[in-house]
Amino acid sequence: MSENGAVPRRGKVLTLDTMNASVKKVEYAVRGPIVQRAVQIEKELKEGVKKPFDEVIKANIGDAHAMGQRPITFFRQVLALCTYPELLDDNTFPEDTKNRARRILQACGGNSIGAYSASQGIECIRQDVARYIERRDGGIPSDPDNIYLSTGASDGIVTILKLLVAGEGRTRTGVMISIPQYPLYSAALAELGAVQINYYLNEEKCWSLDISELKRAVEAARQHCNPRVLCIINPGNPTGQVQSRQCIEDVIRFAAKEGLFLMADEVYQDNVYAEGCQFHSFKKVLFEMGPEYSSTVELASFHSTSKCYMGECGFRGGYMEVINMDPDVKAQLTKLVSVRLCPPVPGQALMDLVVNPPQPGEPSYATFIKERTATLRALAEKAKMTEEILNTVPGISCNPVQGAMYSFPRISLPERAVQEAKAKGVAPDMFYCMKLLEETGICLVPGSGFGQKDGTFHFRMTILPSADKLKVLLNKVKEFHQRFTQQYS
Amino acid sequence: MSENGAVPRRGKVLTLDTMNASVKKVEYAVRGPIVQRAVQIEKELKEGVKKPFDEVIKANIGDAHAMGQRPITFFRQVLALCTYPELLDDNTFPEDTKNRARRILQACGGNSIGAYSASQGIECIRQDVARYIERRDGGIPSDPDNIYLSTGASDGIVTILKLLVAGEGRTRTGVMISIPQYPLYSAALAELGAVQINYYLNEEKCWSLDISELKRAVEAARQHCNPRVLCIINPGNPTGQVQSRQCIEDVIRFAAKEGLFLMADEVYQDNVYAEGCQFHSFKKVLFEMGPEYSSTVELASFHSTSKCYMGECGFRGGYMEVINMDPDVKAQLTKLVSVRLCPPVPGQALMDLVVNPPQPGEPSYATFIKERTATLRALAEKAKMTEEILNTVPGISCNPVQGAMYSFPRISLPERAVQEAKAKGVAPDMFYCMKLLEETGICLVPGSGFGQKDGTFHFRMTILPSADKLKVLLNKVKEFHQRFTQQYS
Ligand SMILES: Cc1ncc(COP(=O)(O)O)c(C=O)c1O
Ligand SMILES: Cc1ncc(COP(=O)(O)O)c(C=O)c1O
Repeated sequence: MSENGAVPRRGKVLTLDTMNASVKKVEYAVRGPIVQRAVQIEKELKEGVKKPFDEVIKANIGDAHAMGQRPITFFRQVLALCTYPELLDDNTFPEDTKNRARRILQACGGNSIGAYSASQGIECIRQDVARYIERRDGGIPSDPDNIYLSTGASDGIVTILKLLVAGEGRTRTGVMISIPQYPLYSAALAELGAVQINYYLNEEKCWSLDISELKRAVEAARQHCNPRVLCIINPGNPTGQVQSRQCIEDVIRFAAKEGLFLMADEVYQDNVYAEGCQFHSFKKVLFEMGPEYSSTVELASFHSTSKCYMGECGFRGGYMEVINMDPDVKAQLTKLVSVRLCPPVPGQALMDLVVNPPQPGEPSYATFIKERTATLRALAEKAKMTEEILNTVPGISCNPVQGAMYSFPRISLPERAVQEAKAKGVAPDMFYCMKLLEETGICLVPGSGFGQKDGTFHFRMTILPSADKLKVLLNKVKEFHQRFTQQYS
Repeated sequence: MSENGAVPRRGKVLTLDTMNASVKKVEYAVRGPIVQRAVQIEKELKEGVKKPFDEVIKANIGDAHAMGQRPITFFRQVLALCTYPELLDDNTFPEDTKNRARRILQACGGNSIGAYSASQGIECIRQDVARYIERRDGGIPSDPDNIYLSTGASDGIVTILKLLVAGEGRTRTGVMISIPQYPLYSAALAELGAVQINYYLNEEKCWSLDISELKRAVEAARQHCNPRVLCIINPGNPTGQVQSRQCIEDVIRFAAKEGLFLMADEVYQDNVYAEGCQFHSFKKVLFEMGPEYSSTVELASFHSTSKCYMGECGFRGGYMEVINMDPDVKAQLTKLVSVRLCPPVPGQALMDLVVNPPQPGEPSYATFIKERTATLRALAEKAKMTEEILNTVPGISCNPVQGAMYSFPRISLPERAVQEAKAKGVAPDMFYCMKLLEETGICLVPGSGFGQKDGTFHFRMTILPSADKLKVLLNKVKEFHQRFTQQYS
């Protein structure tokens, strides 16, 4: 303090210059400047500002309920019963929803979903997850001790990456991620200070994964870091491809040969639309390859309540299964997750219902199947419609949306537009998407937010708006693209 | 691959030796070996193994519902309505619960709590939080833009620490934490590789905070790191003290003088029991000190749905308010939280109800007040009972439990017990607590898990079991302590 007792004037403790440099490097396009501008525009519309459109349509994020998808009745009934157990006396709730709720509550401390759970997740839910995985994978055993419930898949993915990052300089952990990627991965790697190793998906072959490209990437990376992890998203975000069984087998063989820990992000496991495509879990393929693989290759796979037919993003439910993890490391993982106490219990309960849905003969079965089927069918139709309409636009080319919830079409941008964007210091596809937003109210994410081959441009669009809205949206994009192309030619 | 096509045998990618060394350094006693053993013993009891007790009583963690505390009816009714909006047609729900639910749902994407929210939290909930803070702090303004909803307070605390950690070697960020501390802090610092700077609370003066001790600690730390952050927990965990207004003012003056970012963990803000004690928020005191402080000192304060009279730990709701944060850093914070998409929406909704409870004249008001009062009164009685019974035991001395949910009594351990523990390679109070668990089924956490002055021993015990159970527990601890003392004298 100065003589008169006043605090000496000093700068802030925490500034851009003195903050964590790794955090500064983080980028997250799905909620970047375009989305911030979209939120502003929504406010302007509310305040009566005149625009060439009446509403902002957000096709930037895989948020099904926000786009009007209805929750599954059974899930919400059981969750309401768990939240307010007095409803167990209400005769309008089917008997099976009550049984489910009672079972979950019995597994909670003090029979309340307001109690902390075990940090790894509620034991009986982890058992249900293990049985789900066994059914899904044709009987290959799953051990509840290998299941960790998480706060959405995001949390599980970051946690496993955290364990894996070590070394300095040339021994620093390198993590292979697909380009285009879901930007959680690059963000987490930047924050953890790991080395991001890009491998490019093959756009010409429907965004498939070539082992030769994995080889190229890992060999180049070995010059400057220690590649230890290979991340795969299947079905793919943002690219919508579904991997073939053969490809998965090749990837596993590659990981075994190169000594890589596999991370399989399978949050879209029910979102497969294209004929001839099928979801194969990495776990299943690994075990079908026999003990020389199934007893050695280290794998973590991730699932979530946010996607598939559920779309329950707000509950932040998820799980991961770890295979062949060193028991000492597993103990470290368990300790690490205990610092945050536990994943949200309503999300855990929801995960339980997802892995243990109504069975034939139970009162909720018919409605459940009807709702699930309708949602998945609608998504399949919208996947098809998206591909078809976009491919009618000269200068846009769109791979089939085989799965997940996104299309990632390639767009040709006139040279003059590219120049103008560069003069303004923005990526050309950001320039394009920002103009699209201002002129039409449509909010997409530029390809540069996910990564793309140099000199190519894309945007990512979800297929989640209702079919009617999606059609309008696609046709507006079409008109805009034609106008934009003319304007800058 | 070897010639015959087999995978070459190789060790694991991820082992204790090759994993993240910072994660290895993390410790978290509240869920450490004692608790793991307690879980095992519970299983053994279920399997019929004979023990000198019938049940494990867990007084190791501040988990109110698990200890039988009942949720607040109003909260659960509104949450059930948000979860399953068909119940809005149910006449058994009071009108105010329905209005609240409608308001929350309108603020959700697609009117569903299953949609992702803005990463900073739902806007109208942040507004409600700001108004709550204004009421609590006698009208001092709060800006919703400074409010970030979080996944429990844990998440907020770790996020702010993450921003603050920078530098290497002697310029590495040092973070001052009280000893004894809540182990989230030491765990987060270990994980982030920050320097932990201990300042000791004064057990002789009811765990109060001496500025001279803060001075000593910061000066010593300046020899080897860059002290930039001062963390305070008030009311205190594990020590149960409530800071005086004068002390808070002194702490703020100290932080201003030394150039420290203040982190005020105020999750127990409603848990004040002792006569003459009152909760003062750091924000309020800061602003009452006038603009030379209120416009310069950087402060983040934290709240949670987990404690107070709510005890809703499983929902993982929380918020933080940041004051005087550099706008560029705030933008970085907003970006950082967006990577995890959003805090759980049911937890956000619950936080909204906590900051905006039923008002006089509303149908739920009377029941709400009755339930809240009963819970807080019961806690106050148990705080008193704990102190009184423990202080009747020769060799145990317990400060008044002024607030929060814990007592942290000091125990004298006979020299022979200390020697035996050391011979076994465990901390003496861990040895004591483990024996207590095996002989009585009571699960406490040894003081060494929180930090304590060298040569002193403590345990932490929550006051959460029901009054009857707590009395039994305290008397069992009494008997055990006497037996233990005799045995080792
Ligand atoms: C490929 C992928 N992985 C993980 C996530 C994270 O989802 P959540 O954290 O909501 O489970 C997403 C969300 O869009 C995703 O697309
Ligand atoms: C002092 C203190 N801070 C923070 C927390 C974290 O609580 P939560 O993450 O459940 O909000 C706790 C939990 O016991 C605590 O005691």
